[in-house]
Amino acid sequence: MIYLDHAAATPVNKKALEAMEPYFSHDFFNPSSAYLPAKKVSADYESAKATIAHAIGAKSSDLIITAGATEANNLAFTSVSLDGSCQLFSSPTSQGSAGVPLQSCYPSILYLVTEHDSVRKVAEQRGGKPIKVLKTGVIDLDDLKQKITDETELISVSLVNNELGTIQPLAEISAIIREIKIDRLKRGIKKQLLLHSDASQALNLLDINVARLGVDLLTLNSAKVYGPKGVGALYVSHDVNLKPLTYGGGQENGLRSGTENVPGVIGFAKAVEIAKEHLNGNRKKYATWRQTLLKELTDYELINKKHSVDNFVNLCYNNIDAERLIYLLEDKQIYVSTGAACAASKGQKSHVLAAIGLSDSQIAGSLRLTLGETNDDAQIHEAAKIINEVVAKEKERLQNV
Amino acid sequence: MIYLDHAAATPVNKKALEAMEPYFSHDFFNPSSAYLPAKKVSADYESAKATIAHAIGAKSSDLIITAGATEANNLAFTSVSLDGSCQLFSSPTSQGSAGVPLQSCYPSILYLVTEHDSVRKVAEQRGGKPIKVLKTGVIDLDDLKQKITDETELISVSLVNNELGTIQPLAEISAIIREIKIDRLKRGIKKQLLLHSDASQALNLLDINVARLGVDLLTLNSAKVYGPKGVGALYVSHDVNLKPLTYGGGQENGLRSGTENVPGVIGFAKAVEIAKEHLNGNRKKYATWRQTLLKELTDYELINKKHSVDNFVNLCYNNIDAERLIYLLEDKQIYVSTGAACAASKGQKSHVLAAIGLSDSQIAGSLRLTLGETNDDAQIHEAAKIINEVVAKEKERLQNV
Repeated sequence: MIYLDHAAATPVNKKALEAMEPYFSHDFFNPSSAYLPAKKVSADYESAKATIAHAIGAKSSDLIITAGATEANNLAFTSVSLDGSCQLFSSPTSQGSAGVPLQSCYPSILYLVTEHDSVRKVAEQRGGKPIKVLKTGVIDLDDLKQKITDETELISVSLVNNELGTIQPLAEISAIIREIKIDRLKRGIKKQLLLHSDASQALNLLDINVARLGVDLLTLNSAKVYGPKGVGALYVSHDVNLKPLTYGGGQENGLRSGTENVPGVIGFAKAVEIAKEHLNGNRKKYATWRQTLLKELTDYELINKKHSVDNFVNLCYNNIDAERLIYLLEDKQIYVSTGAACAASKGQKSHVLAAIGLSDSQIAGSLRLTLGETNDDAQIHEAAKIINEVVAKEKERLQNV
Repeated sequence: MIYLDHAAATPVNKKALEAMEPYFSHDFFNPSSAYLPAKKVSADYESAKATIAHAIGAKSSDLIITAGATEANNLAFTSVSLDGSCQLFSSPTSQGSAGVPLQSCYPSILYLVTEHDSVRKVAEQRGGKPIKVLKTGVIDLDDLKQKITDETELISVSLVNNELGTIQPLAEISAIIREIKIDRLKRGIKKQLLLHSDASQALNLLDINVARLGVDLLTLNSAKVYGPKGVGALYVSHDVNLKPLTYGGGQENGLRSGTENVPGVIGFAKAVEIAKEHLNGNRKKYATWRQTLLKELTDYELINKKHSVDNFVNLCYNNIDAERLIYLLEDKQIYVSTGAACAASKGQKSHVLAAIGLSDSQIAGSLRLTLGETNDDAQIHEAAKIINEVVAKEKERLQNV
């Protein structure tokens, strides 16, 4: 098996799994219980949170643990409240029911057009407006500047795009935001202006520091960094007010109720620790593999030429159906994808590839290879060879149709 | 160690953990991916859901997997929508912000006063009214009947109370609801009237069948039945409309986005399977142990005399501080609690014990022992002996103060 879809899912790192194991059946206590063994579990849980927080230059108390990046992204958007005043002026016929609010009633949210569905759909739901990207996949800063108004409260831009691996210039974005905030203060406008970033795909490929990036909210995902599925976190700067998505026992500072997923968080922390430790080595390794693929593969057009993390290789095969390539490669036990797993499963056309200006036929011929810890040198050469063969065979078949 | 707090947390069953293990690092694929190994994972996930559903007489498609009972309970309440009309008539000053709606604007929700915070707080948040309980902890059906109006849309009554183990007569409640629905139909009132039940504490102690209970929504919890933490489920009858709490990739029929927690659900399913298999044997075992405790313990007042599941033993020690008993017992490695772990950790007085009419001093002297799979005969005798000793010593100390 040659697995080239690490952006869709990663296996749990062996050491992370080992770290988790005691907490399933031995140290299984409810962290909220009063007796000593439970308090030890609670302390281990807090220490794991501190490890995760430390990896992004934050404190344990800045972190809200969630069931994954989707929940973290959704929670980030609760920082923007429904504007009460506009409800009063809406007509009865245009009245939205709960959960389907009127677009015009919501304060201004801006989000990058290439965001994952877990940002895009929440943003759309709350009347958010998309910010354009350049042909490189990088944010169009002019479009951003033009769209920020005095009403804008939240801007959401992922650190690394999940389909192209594009790294967004968050520090530049936060510098723009800082200027606007200073200007607003001068003019006596008190409205908040927050920057949220979904860093799901970034934690094991970039050195993340919330202060340096200038973000107020940052989403982390265990399942993408060789930690267990079903765990994520939202970094929240101390001056940001969130509202809980669920109510209950009041865990996670009252913002995320429910008995803590102790083994999950322990595993997540261990995975983060390992990712940080091997960050530079892995980046070099992936960069070399990327170069090998680009050299040894034939007849492709490279989509993500620059500005992307080292483990994303996006290829376009003209006039070939990438869906078909996936099935042909599957026969050779090579696993790749066309884009986000959740979108691909619904047969949707990639909104990301459309946003960078690819034609429908280019989108149809696009493959995403994401390299990772299950790979080795030999696999990369083998993958290039087999992909070339499969593409050649498919071209031959098409000529004879 | 003698652990007598199985209502707070249970260790993951060894077989459940074994069932989970392959899915961490081997069958780790994203269930939404297009290639065969991912489709196998997806099939295993669906099959696990079917096992859980089958245990309550439901179909896999009726089940929404969540991160636990808290989220499932919160999701159940989305079946009741904000009444759009009342928003228009509220004055600007009384306008609630998002997430803090105006009580008067919400349709009628009824909930049992003794519900867990993950029901009670959502219900309160949405303007719900509490239904009284009798001194036994059982629902006051007269109070229920009196409080149901033509506006009532949702009634939430847990199957087994988390502090007292009280079994609520859900079949009787659903019979009452059926009558009211027939009457409403006759009068041309189309408003829904749903019954939700939090069965978190019930799955390994009662034979649950959603049709027999007559519930429209039922919450299940993995962590209370020797499955992993961080997993739960909401059974939803096919004619009930829910709204998602989070938006994203559209997993779980669009009602709960986020990459599926495959190992968690596999472990939950195995735990449910084992619970069902040993249901009758375990009940008998717990009933015997309960009798042993009631016989061998001294100087207590029994709080949950009847109508409770077999593994709950609620004791009241007059004029003794139960919090202190917990610490003294901890020294002897016996772990018990005063009530719900999440409430206990905040030092709150039990709203459940208050609701059944206990005085403040009775509440202060209340211990909850919940028996389970980590116990054996010898432990039960030993626990009775040590608790008696500790209580006697504490009484002596108090006399000498």
